[in-house]
Amino acid sequence: MKIPSYGDVVTAHRRIKPFINKTPVLTSSYLNNLLKCELFFKCENFQKVGAFKYRGATNAMLSLSREELQRGVATHSSGNHAQALALAAKTFGSRATIIMPKNSPIVKQRAVAGYGADIIFCEPTLESRQQTLQEFVDKTGAIFIHPYNKFEIICGQATAAKELIEEVGWLDYILVPVGGGGLLSGTAVVTKTLMPNASVVAAEPSGADDAARSFRSGKLQLSVSPQTIADGLRTSLGELTFEIIKHYVDDIITETDENIIQAMKLIWERMKIIIEPSSAVPIAAVISNQGVFEGKRVGIIISGGNVDLDNLPW
Amino acid sequence: MKIPSYGDVVTAHRRIKPFINKTPVLTSSYLNNLLKCELFFKCENFQKVGAFKYRGATNAMLSLSREELQRGVATHSSGNHAQALALAAKTFGSRATIIMPKNSPIVKQRAVAGYGADIIFCEPTLESRQQTLQEFVDKTGAIFIHPYNKFEIICGQATAAKELIEEVGWLDYILVPVGGGGLLSGTAVVTKTLMPNASVVAAEPSGADDAARSFRSGKLQLSVSPQTIADGLRTSLGELTFEIIKHYVDDIITETDENIIQAMKLIWERMKIIIEPSSAVPIAAVISNQGVFEGKRVGIIISGGNVDLDNLPW
Repeated sequence: MKIPSYGDVVTAHRRIKPFINKTPVLTSSYLNNLLKCELFFKCENFQKVGAFKYRGATNAMLSLSREELQRGVATHSSGNHAQALALAAKTFGSRATIIMPKNSPIVKQRAVAGYGADIIFCEPTLESRQQTLQEFVDKTGAIFIHPYNKFEIICGQATAAKELIEEVGWLDYILVPVGGGGLLSGTAVVTKTLMPNASVVAAEPSGADDAARSFRSGKLQLSVSPQTIADGLRTSLGELTFEIIKHYVDDIITETDENIIQAMKLIWERMKIIIEPSSAVPIAAVISNQGVFEGKRVGIIISGGNVDLDNLPW
Repeated sequence: MKIPSYGDVVTAHRRIKPFINKTPVLTSSYLNNLLKCELFFKCENFQKVGAFKYRGATNAMLSLSREELQRGVATHSSGNHAQALALAAKTFGSRATIIMPKNSPIVKQRAVAGYGADIIFCEPTLESRQQTLQEFVDKTGAIFIHPYNKFEIICGQATAAKELIEEVGWLDYILVPVGGGGLLSGTAVVTKTLMPNASVVAAEPSGADDAARSFRSGKLQLSVSPQTIADGLRTSLGELTFEIIKHYVDDIITETDENIIQAMKLIWERMKIIIEPSSAVPIAAVISNQGVFEGKRVGIIISGGNVDLDNLPW
């Protein structure tokens, strides 16, 4: 298990820069007044495919040989990683195959197909997903690109925090949502190198609190039947991401779906940007813990903006 | 009737700059590919109070004497101008009174009150609005700040186009929505000075097409019982704005509510920004007239982002 260093992130950033959006950092004087701290929002909802996942997927594709690109890539995800891998594969002349549960929302199937990926449907169980993927990889020689528990993916996701810190300078806190831990572990590596005194805090839905439980117990806990509106955060940590999180993360805060939805609506109303529920979890954490963040400079990575506009949670 | 010159806009810009947001210009490679032109979105939905109206209101307040500021300001509007005037009045130590029809949506009443303005309710007719305002002005000596048919307001709104052109340089077209014509007339003055060869095109809902009818007939036509989702564009042109529009505007395109709603949803989905229906009208115009805009550099002013999130039009 090779843990990424800051140097690895610098290399990844140099490599992916021509292919990603340099997303803006937005601020809101209204929210600063309301929450009595200085907030910096790194808007990965404006990233290609609408999520930070495009950074990692691009870095993963760029690490493949020409021969590997020809074999194609595959993953089991129905969310933003699937779209990111689909577009990145297309961009670099490869082909992505996405294993999706056959009950996946049509809107997600359409998004992945829209970026030119092939879809193979499986039963909606973890076993079926893994088995279908394994069979496909064995048969075709396609390269499995794990959504988060992979060196190149973590290095790619880490570049969002690098850009944020390079733009706004010194911060007291940096907050990100945690699902599988790719964004969190990458952010932690960057932050603890560039600003050793800053705290890295993760925010997690209380209905999918495996990362918080793993963090407190020191042992990797799985996400069992997660129940949360934050559809990007239902997965469990991986061994590699957990190893990094154990060493570098300062705290993990959990938030209820009610708080997550309120925070999401507040951002839509006041900042006029569309963020998905997963992105609202760190904002809910700031709202719930005003004593902690008061007077501080707080960076938040807005992880994505992919929402079904016909099914809003309010 | 004094028509603003570009010099007047420069003066207004210098004056209001410390108090307004310098809003970003966003682009979307997806939309550029889809519509086969190069689009530049000047995002006034990120302006204070969520709309370009704050520019004009700020300029109007800054043109008042100390004695006038003490008398207070008043207007009859239930939309973005009311919120803008309320916040601008508070910012400069004055007080705004807003005449609103008593059937105005609660969300709009709350927004205006939230910025510290007083509200006087009237009957939901044009006569009652004007009479109530006149009585209030006569009694208190408050200064009436017209939403658009006013020199200082037009100069303020014009600064959005000035910033856009200064940032992106030469354009073939600049598109804005038209309601009362404050934004359109200001944009036209700036554009025809800085880029005389560029076309200024207005977009208007077909259910409130008084500007298009006025433009074609050369005579000021009133908006009679307008029917459109674009709530910011139901008003008629004023004499001053029409005079400028007659001279400087190249065309006015009308769009159905169906097209407006589709364009609005497309922007939400693809750009992850919240725009109000009025802002979607120019985008609908580009979608409907691809032959006209193909291969061109097109600037669009996104006028605002104030939407009731509990009542979306899809």
